[in-house]
Amino acid sequence: MQAMGIAMETMGQEKRCAVFGASGGIGAALVAALSVRADVAQVWAGGRSGVGVPGPKVASFAFDLLDEASIAAACAAIGGPLDLVIVATGRLTYADGAGPEKSTRALSGDHLAEMFAINAAGPALIAKHALPLLRKDTRAVFAAISARVGSIGDNRLGGWHAYRASKAALNMLVRTMAIELARTHPQALAVTLHPGTVDTALSQPFQRGVAAEKLFTADYSAGRMLAVLDGLAPSQSGRLFAWDGAEVPF
Amino acid sequence: MQAMGIAMETMGQEKRCAVFGASGGIGAALVAALSVRADVAQVWAGGRSGVGVPGPKVASFAFDLLDEASIAAACAAIGGPLDLVIVATGRLTYADGAGPEKSTRALSGDHLAEMFAINAAGPALIAKHALPLLRKDTRAVFAAISARVGSIGDNRLGGWHAYRASKAALNMLVRTMAIELARTHPQALAVTLHPGTVDTALSQPFQRGVAAEKLFTADYSAGRMLAVLDGLAPSQSGRLFAWDGAEVPF
Repeated sequence: MQAMGIAMETMGQEKRCAVFGASGGIGAALVAALSVRADVAQVWAGGRSGVGVPGPKVASFAFDLLDEASIAAACAAIGGPLDLVIVATGRLTYADGAGPEKSTRALSGDHLAEMFAINAAGPALIAKHALPLLRKDTRAVFAAISARVGSIGDNRLGGWHAYRASKAALNMLVRTMAIELARTHPQALAVTLHPGTVDTALSQPFQRGVAAEKLFTADYSAGRMLAVLDGLAPSQSGRLFAWDGAEVPF
Repeated sequence: MQAMGIAMETMGQEKRCAVFGASGGIGAALVAALSVRADVAQVWAGGRSGVGVPGPKVASFAFDLLDEASIAAACAAIGGPLDLVIVATGRLTYADGAGPEKSTRALSGDHLAEMFAINAAGPALIAKHALPLLRKDTRAVFAAISARVGSIGDNRLGGWHAYRASKAALNMLVRTMAIELARTHPQALAVTLHPGTVDTALSQPFQRGVAAEKLFTADYSAGRMLAVLDGLAPSQSGRLFAWDGAEVPF
């Protein structure tokens, strides 16, 4: 890693990226896609127990979304400046095996707390420690994977109460941070992303009824989301964008 | 209470209401305003340790927002049918005395969990047990006090990260429930409300900079919000309305 660090400084414009949640389907695909880009010098790929390293540019790290000290230590090890930070963590089902709620009577305080901790508080704590690492002199991006079902205005089907609420909370947290980020990093952005319905372990139990052409591979979704992030201007910070670049209302 | 129950059935069209969080400034004002209305027969007023009873129509009950069993017991004691349920609970500051966050670096996992539990999960658990009590044969309303600062799209100032996120989560939870409610109670509504900036214990430390004409008494805010609820149609269910009737974007 030391040799990589030196090479990077020498190359000047080469980008340093970090992906939190790189053991998930979308996170792993983001790491793979970034690692083959010519403009990327280094990708830090983090998961709960370390992750696979698909190439020489990739370095792995471990963190626990529910342990802020582990997030702080990971960010200290990664160091700045970073050009891109993506949080691709997230859960739809519960640790006890329960699926997302189909009705209000299925709500439980413990489930709501679990979902908020993992899908909203965890990414916010990553942002707390990662945003200060973003490059100040040129464009830099923080992005968290959210979901269209986290759009309150777009909610017409109901259900999945806690998951939806946790993603709405995440959208708010990132927007709030984006406002603050603009004061110190005027060329930076913080956004949330809707990856589409992606064929991963998270969505697997819920893919029935999804048309084949709307069920993306993780590689396809990752590629489209990176293209969206490449095209965003700082004035678009604080918003929610889908895999195709369309802005999703809150 | 037994006598009241009998009288109520006799009166037929007279309304039965329940206010959760009736020891707070806004909640107490809502109880007082409802208790003097000619169309209201009974107001159940609940707080953590019981609340004052401003008149003969009012009955008090105790519940703990963090204890679902106490909420279930309260709803069983109140019984149905209910014409109006208002959740006026909420916190802006933390149990340890800390105020809302001014910056991302002030975020803590414990604070986020506390805010989500009190401002989002608690009202959702009340709704879980109170929505089945809503009258089915005529118009009925469930409303939870939210806040304009819980609007993601309207967030231009930043700060108050956890409070904002918890209210965005609350808005989503109520909207999700509204969709479900429409299937069983086609004449009912579930909405969130922005009370304005009201001169209460919650807002007291943060009133500096609020113009005098924009700092409402709790009685004024309660009266305006009840008028808004009176005027809403079932087609407006699932939305966020301000004290003046204006719809607030999510």
